[in-house]
Amino acid sequence: MKELILNLIEQDKYAQVRKEIIKINIVDIAQILEELDTQKVLLVFRILPKEIAAGVFSYMPNDLQRYIVESITDKEIENILNKLFLDDKIDFLEEMPSNFVKKVLKNTDEKTRNLINQFLNYPEDSAGSKMTIEYVDLKKEMTVRQAIEHIKATGIDKETIDTCYVINKNRILEGVITIRKLILSEDTAIVKDIMQTDVIYINTYDDQEKIASLFKKYDFISMPVVDNERRLVGIITIDDIIDIIDQENTEDLQKMAAMEPSEEEYLKTNVLVLAKHRITWLLILMISATFTGNIIRRFNDVLTSVVVLNSFIPMLMDTGGNAGSQSSTLIIRGLALGEINLTDIFKVLWKEFKVSFFVGVILASVNFLRIYYFEKIDFLVAVAVSITLFFTVMLSKIVGGVLPMVAKFFKVDPAIMAGPLITTIVDAVVLIIYFNMATLLLGI
Amino acid sequence: MKELILNLIEQDKYAQVRKEIIKINIVDIAQILEELDTQKVLLVFRILPKEIAAGVFSYMPNDLQRYIVESITDKEIENILNKLFLDDKIDFLEEMPSNFVKKVLKNTDEKTRNLINQFLNYPEDSAGSKMTIEYVDLKKEMTVRQAIEHIKATGIDKETIDTCYVINKNRILEGVITIRKLILSEDTAIVKDIMQTDVIYINTYDDQEKIASLFKKYDFISMPVVDNERRLVGIITIDDIIDIIDQENTEDLQKMAAMEPSEEEYLKTNVLVLAKHRITWLLILMISATFTGNIIRRFNDVLTSVVVLNSFIPMLMDTGGNAGSQSSTLIIRGLALGEINLTDIFKVLWKEFKVSFFVGVILASVNFLRIYYFEKIDFLVAVAVSITLFFTVMLSKIVGGVLPMVAKFFKVDPAIMAGPLITTIVDAVVLIIYFNMATLLLGI
Repeated sequence: MKELILNLIEQDKYAQVRKEIIKINIVDIAQILEELDTQKVLLVFRILPKEIAAGVFSYMPNDLQRYIVESITDKEIENILNKLFLDDKIDFLEEMPSNFVKKVLKNTDEKTRNLINQFLNYPEDSAGSKMTIEYVDLKKEMTVRQAIEHIKATGIDKETIDTCYVINKNRILEGVITIRKLILSEDTAIVKDIMQTDVIYINTYDDQEKIASLFKKYDFISMPVVDNERRLVGIITIDDIIDIIDQENTEDLQKMAAMEPSEEEYLKTNVLVLAKHRITWLLILMISATFTGNIIRRFNDVLTSVVVLNSFIPMLMDTGGNAGSQSSTLIIRGLALGEINLTDIFKVLWKEFKVSFFVGVILASVNFLRIYYFEKIDFLVAVAVSITLFFTVMLSKIVGGVLPMVAKFFKVDPAIMAGPLITTIVDAVVLIIYFNMATLLLGI
Repeated sequence: MKELILNLIEQDKYAQVRKEIIKINIVDIAQILEELDTQKVLLVFRILPKEIAAGVFSYMPNDLQRYIVESITDKEIENILNKLFLDDKIDFLEEMPSNFVKKVLKNTDEKTRNLINQFLNYPEDSAGSKMTIEYVDLKKEMTVRQAIEHIKATGIDKETIDTCYVINKNRILEGVITIRKLILSEDTAIVKDIMQTDVIYINTYDDQEKIASLFKKYDFISMPVVDNERRLVGIITIDDIIDIIDQENTEDLQKMAAMEPSEEEYLKTNVLVLAKHRITWLLILMISATFTGNIIRRFNDVLTSVVVLNSFIPMLMDTGGNAGSQSSTLIIRGLALGEINLTDIFKVLWKEFKVSFFVGVILASVNFLRIYYFEKIDFLVAVAVSITLFFTVMLSKIVGGVLPMVAKFFKVDPAIMAGPLITTIVDAVVLIIYFNMATLLLGI
């Protein structure tokens, strides 16, 4: 289907394009537009029926949206913007230059203008900036018949009417009721009597991470957003939550790999911006590695008297880093998903102690057999390396397991305590153990 | 509210508990049960009204579910199982011992038994194993009035009736229509004329990763699942998708930290299982580090003649590992989210080349200033270290950027090409560059 349409566009058969393109999903139409050359984008966008143009527009990437609004008339822009749901409109305006936003605001009626301004002022990543106002509100005194009539009369513009919100005359949220419940109830039943009253709601200033965890916990499709007086001001729908979950996960991953988090797609990010996100942590970690260098210099006589000790340093350091990353990753993830709490710290400590004991014994044994029998390394050196390896694993797993929880206790994002930082910390300690063990066993 | 109920339970005031507990969400009830001592769990579970007991049961962790079914009568088990949605029932049975499953199957009617058996046989993580059969199907010839009557007659047991699926007499999926569209349409309109026909559907054998990406792309609340003849067999709802997304992200993270992926929660996983998941990769990476050791031994004379060279090896190796992790993390994530495709490989290569050039120049300069002016290292040694550092960054970023894409090309999970493996690969090359650079500049 998509191929057919792309072919028709290629051959400039726009009448047929128009006929075929309305048969497919708006997300796919947006994707087709993305693949076209810029001069064809406008041609195709303009043949879209008005009622789907706005939907397609909301699924385009920002650069394409911007190209389109810069190329079409003010009247056309107005048509699109009027048809966009408020949350999509806000998303779009947030990415546009401020003079464009001003122009748009000038052309809208005062009520919408105030609304848009209010939404643009909510903190980024707060419920207020993510919510939409296209919801259905019912009065609690309505009968089911009245409620359904009300939905029919106002519902056509609503983003989701699957759940309706019941308010009193001061707009205080008092209950929720699904369309399903309404349809399955008697016409004469009163909304108040059949609505659910244990409403789980979000405050406009709640952070998106909290919102996502509420959606995950309760399996909701949408949730009401209220102000500090518990007045209903908007709703958040689950499709936005999935984007939030992906975004939070990406952020965590970036922090865990020692980068500043960024929402932008890799391919669309400027080289200097990418470099900037990476350089800070690389500098910090590079300079921290000075300690490791100092330790090596202090033990130079050990290294020069038994030169072969040198060749095991990378293996010890890498294993420490890897073992520490494993533990810290599990703990960071567990904290992020709410599966591990701060109060579990002693359980984590004890678990990592046991796991690292097993893992350490196996690694140290394999290593001893390998270097003593296959690489024919001196017995005592092999013992020193293997014992150090055992302590390396123990230490790095315990540090890797505990540091993310310590970070969380101090309200620092646990994701920072991941591989890179753990490695740097563990490296220094590993070398101290190694050199002392060698000095002791080899009598240097 | 939760505190109040826990207090009432503490004081054994079960009549009041019953009155209060039905006012809160089933997810919260399940959470209260989790927090109770085992002997109280049964008491509270048994006072729950029948119509919510099954819902609460479906939100309990597996060990608690198991404890309950082992402690209540067969009749009570039957009551709960009959009220569970099929997907929750399957989830539950999958975790139970096979003799329990057999007993349950013996007590159900033949039709349900066949269904359950069929569902238990779908591959894990396939659409078949995740779908539910509680959907509403409409015939395309129905009028809107007939459709709504049909929903009222059958809808009470359905997990979601927000979207209805339109089939022909051979059960072939022909369209979808939302409740919202039905309510907003004329009573006499024919379903066929107002339904959407560009149905996006899932095959029973599609993998959960594919399903999640379809949900993300189209912002659906539910999607139909069809067999190879396009006959409607079930639906998947978005609440299950969120769990899948979290699970896929956790798996990726575990692979990136060189562990075998596991779905189990950390605190609930046995120590030996945790050790087993970690040991394989640690052994592989430890043995790979042999190469690095061999390189150092081969260049022992360089190291003994200029001993200070030794002290920069950890810094060079760590920086290489960190720089490589940054790039590989971004690329792995981009591939997972579909933001980067295999065809972008040259764009990635070129971008990493430019980024690593900037980052490399800055790191090398800072390092040179630091070790030459502050640590008073010999000029030529400082030059050798800094040039090596520059090439380390270039190399590790390019390797880190490209290897995940190469993995994907060979149908290997890109997440494996993360920090630990990249570090091991880069380490060896960095040392070769370092020793050659030192030999050249210092004339050893």
